[in-house]
Amino acid sequence: MAGRTWLQQATPITFGLKAAGWLDMLGRCRVRLNVAVDDALVLQFGGASGTLAALGDDAMRVAEAFAARLALALPEMPWQTQRDRLAAVAAALGILCGALGKIGRDLVLLAQSEVREVFETPSAGRGGSSTMPHKSNPVGAVSAVSAAIRAPALVSTMLSGMTQEHERAAGGWQAEWATLPELWRVGSVAAEAIAQAVGNLTVDPARMRENLTQHGHGIMSEALFVALSDHLPRRNAMGVAERLSREAERTRRSLRDVAAEDLDIGGNFAVNELADRLTPDNYLGASQRFIDRVLARWAP
Amino acid sequence: MAGRTWLQQATPITFGLKAAGWLDMLGRCRVRLNVAVDDALVLQFGGASGTLAALGDDAMRVAEAFAARLALALPEMPWQTQRDRLAAVAAALGILCGALGKIGRDLVLLAQSEVREVFETPSAGRGGSSTMPHKSNPVGAVSAVSAAIRAPALVSTMLSGMTQEHERAAGGWQAEWATLPELWRVGSVAAEAIAQAVGNLTVDPARMRENLTQHGHGIMSEALFVALSDHLPRRNAMGVAERLSREAERTRRSLRDVAAEDLDIGGNFAVNELADRLTPDNYLGASQRFIDRVLARWAP
Amino acid sequence: MAGRTWLQQATPITFGLKAAGWLDMLGRCRVRLNVAVDDALVLQFGGASGTLAALGDDAMRVAEAFAARLALALPEMPWQTQRDRLAAVAAALGILCGALGKIGRDLVLLAQSEVREVFETPSAGRGGSSTMPHKSNPVGAVSAVSAAIRAPALVSTMLSGMTQEHERAAGGWQAEWATLPELWRVGSVAAEAIAQAVGNLTVDPARMRENLTQHGHGIMSEALFVALSDHLPRRNAMGVAERLSREAERTRRSLRDVAAEDLDIGGNFAVNELADRLTPDNYLGASQRFIDRVLARWAP
Amino acid sequence: MAGRTWLQQATPITFGLKAAGWLDMLGRCRVRLNVAVDDALVLQFGGASGTLAALGDDAMRVAEAFAARLALALPEMPWQTQRDRLAAVAAALGILCGALGKIGRDLVLLAQSEVREVFETPSAGRGGSSTMPHKSNPVGAVSAVSAAIRAPALVSTMLSGMTQEHERAAGGWQAEWATLPELWRVGSVAAEAIAQAVGNLTVDPARMRENLTQHGHGIMSEALFVALSDHLPRRNAMGVAERLSREAERTRRSLRDVAAEDLDIGGNFAVNELADRLTPDNYLGASQRFIDRVLARWAP
Repeated sequence: MAGRTWLQQATPITFGLKAAGWLDMLGRCRVRLNVAVDDALVLQFGGASGTLAALGDDAMRVAEAFAARLALALPEMPWQTQRDRLAAVAAALGILCGALGKIGRDLVLLAQSEVREVFETPSAGRGGSSTMPHKSNPVGAVSAVSAAIRAPALVSTMLSGMTQEHERAAGGWQAEWATLPELWRVGSVAAEAIAQAVGNLTVDPARMRENLTQHGHGIMSEALFVALSDHLPRRNAMGVAERLSREAERTRRSLRDVAAEDLDIGGNFAVNELADRLTPDNYLGASQRFIDRVLARWAP
Repeated sequence: MAGRTWLQQATPITFGLKAAGWLDMLGRCRVRLNVAVDDALVLQFGGASGTLAALGDDAMRVAEAFAARLALALPEMPWQTQRDRLAAVAAALGILCGALGKIGRDLVLLAQSEVREVFETPSAGRGGSSTMPHKSNPVGAVSAVSAAIRAPALVSTMLSGMTQEHERAAGGWQAEWATLPELWRVGSVAAEAIAQAVGNLTVDPARMRENLTQHGHGIMSEALFVALSDHLPRRNAMGVAERLSREAERTRRSLRDVAAEDLDIGGNFAVNELADRLTPDNYLGASQRFIDRVLARWAP
Repeated sequence: MAGRTWLQQATPITFGLKAAGWLDMLGRCRVRLNVAVDDALVLQFGGASGTLAALGDDAMRVAEAFAARLALALPEMPWQTQRDRLAAVAAALGILCGALGKIGRDLVLLAQSEVREVFETPSAGRGGSSTMPHKSNPVGAVSAVSAAIRAPALVSTMLSGMTQEHERAAGGWQAEWATLPELWRVGSVAAEAIAQAVGNLTVDPARMRENLTQHGHGIMSEALFVALSDHLPRRNAMGVAERLSREAERTRRSLRDVAAEDLDIGGNFAVNELADRLTPDNYLGASQRFIDRVLARWAP
Repeated sequence: MAGRTWLQQATPITFGLKAAGWLDMLGRCRVRLNVAVDDALVLQFGGASGTLAALGDDAMRVAEAFAARLALALPEMPWQTQRDRLAAVAAALGILCGALGKIGRDLVLLAQSEVREVFETPSAGRGGSSTMPHKSNPVGAVSAVSAAIRAPALVSTMLSGMTQEHERAAGGWQAEWATLPELWRVGSVAAEAIAQAVGNLTVDPARMRENLTQHGHGIMSEALFVALSDHLPRRNAMGVAERLSREAERTRRSLRDVAAEDLDIGGNFAVNELADRLTPDNYLGASQRFIDRVLARWAP
């Protein structure tokens, strides 16, 4: 399929490479969230001002027993207005939502009518429209994008709330109450939505190839430039590649065909070599290597 | 000094406990930031679409050499649109700013004309006013609070920017450029400001005690309630404590004096015992223990 | 061109209707920004605490002269910590950036290799790529999208900063200093970027029609359903429309051709009528009327 | 009472001036919200892509009737993805929350144990503590501060959501659903909380004066500088004022007494004049004038 930069076809990639990028990112997000949650699972128990004075000499013993009962770690001290651990959980959730939103946006874009390379397989009662019988909407992907729009603000509220006064805040603490649970909810919904969507994709390799052929008049232009650079000075190579790419774009023919006919470069390549080098399948670089590395790291 | 909840004097604490809370939080923030930065120090090198196709068979070797030259780790794959590592650095900076802002806000509040227990020691050319010769403004603390107001939004921009399209984003990537450096700057300024402020504090124990005496008519009310609970049913104890606290507040006398004169409770305590139990220094609970634990964890 | 919902072709629209939506929104944004700026152009002059006491009896006369000199209105009172007017300017800028970002995103999507209906006309030194000679990136549109990602956070900082203490804030005021100017800059850059982009678009009606033909197998499905509803019960009409839309999608033929061959509906329509009703140009509804209304409101 | 800058006593103001600032700001916020809501009360009715094609020639008539039935204005065109009007409502709510938060923060600060000039009158079941019978928490004020911490992020979500694709967004629209209602709720709760709090304040003028006397050793230093400037060069005047202010601060005596004894300035003033000019009540500048202007504008 086309690798796309600024939503323009750039150079070829495989769908596997794109999905490896998703996996790699989600793997890190899971680690990050687990660390943040583990760090936050500490007892908060300090009485009014964090001294446990009302418990007298029993303070530490009660705290230890309380922590044990709740299966929480006992922190160095009560943390009534040191909210960094909760903020870190919020941040990890926000980063996860951003990652899920990236996947969601990719899916929305891949499912466009004019691209349609990968899409959530429609099913009864999911993604339909009341008046447009043909529609099958990318509901999981959109749900994740929506979460990724909402989460940053919820994280920022948790961060804004950290500036808590003295031993119990007058505002910042109260702002957390509605925010952190909502952020958990938003993150969970997004994770579930992407899990469902990714687990139920229709992947259409024929359409990927068709889009390359039909719209990718320039997708091999870098490859042409690289190939020409073996024979010509770099600046000349760029000039020729530009000229031919524009010609391919203008005439909507493949760059391979346009290049094959060009007199300037004909003498520099054996016929087959140029065709080989301008075939997308031969210009995937280290894609498979990268995929293998990602799988080795995250595969169960 | 008074422990304060909702900015009301609650129960006594020591300044050491408050500062231990600052240290504990900053210690965690430093760890968190170091982890995030270490995780982010990975090479980004992928060419247009993240395949390194233009380098042919040399791709991995070049990437390894490039990473080595820059002293960066080699990631599983290029991460053109997987921005979670940068977002995690931003989040760690945002949490740090929140922590610094909390310290800053405490300092601003402690330096108020009517509190004045702890304040940044004025020095020539720092914190003065052009028309009010008496003013000495908490400039370091305010700088940190200002950072804590700005940082959450900068973090949210980094999170919003994560939803990046395909192999190179059309907007989200560009939004990072001005944001992450600014966040570094904001965090650095705040850290420096708090370091300077905390390293140059005037701490006034006499004033702490005076504020307790003068305004803390109720600060020992919990202690009274706890003491009474040894002799009376809990509900009665609360009733008596409430009545006497209100009396102390109304007459602006110390709860200790008011309680000593009260016939209802006189019989329950040896004279000295009640005075002892209503002395703030004797109602600090596990404060010192908490301070020791914090120091043990973070002291160099 | 295709009207697109959830990035799926839905029902036909004209490019004019899309552009009218942009104009209508920008028109409102301009009014809103002008109102906010006019409201904010008031003198702030109050001395330390907003009393102008240092000026004695001259206070009001000096304030009036000062305002006149600066061509500012004289407010009811100094507004040292009443920052709503500045926040309103920030909000108007943020809404403008959101509007510009919407236009930018539409342009990015329309310029995709696979859509390519409307795009910023490439010019020397603008939007090119160093290694991919064929690329012409939607630089203006991306600049606006980037602004729209950054602006909401800058607005939120201005709002967060409003909670200013007493007569001069300890943090919130200082947070405005870097924020409002940056927001102006971001908004100006985005406005300029969209003005340039929209003023220099290549619009390709042939491609719009081609995309409808090639990918719009279902874009007339609502029209078919509406047409059938003249002759069949609503539920039956939906059933037939669904069936035929799926058939058109599966075979990648136009719904018009598929419907023409269908025995079930053949008897209900004169041959030409069905063809007419399934022609996109005949299913544009009140588009032109809407465009006229927008132009009447905003045209100079 | 003391006007306070950076939470330091600066120059005297009246509580009336502070409250006038609140009123002036809230007055503007109400106007702003009303305008935004009026602008947003327009019909949204456009069918799938905003053309109303399914209604054929009846489109405008149906739209008009629909708008009339709902008592909404008929907009120039449907606004499926032009969300600026909703964003403007959100912004007006956010600015209102900021204003309410400023009032809340002032109230929290004024109610501090060490300041206690103005506070929400305690009542049964409101603001109490389960273990500290003396506590009366500023619950209304804190509720408003909490709202002011949450609202900016909710506004930023509405702004981030504006970047909506084509004729129906894939994410931005969905993000509005939970956000705008929550913002209304947050704003309403804050408005109600401040209305209750401000309607039920205990104002303690004796304490205001006491705080001036006891902690305001420098609050008249600007007045002294101004008075001296009538007789000495500006630079000398500042030098003397600084020296005496520091002396007053050090000895915790009133600047008036310290100045009266100073030989350097004794000759410059008639005895009574200096005392007059260093009396806070005589250094309120245009405060009353400002209050009158605010009342004239907003009083019913």
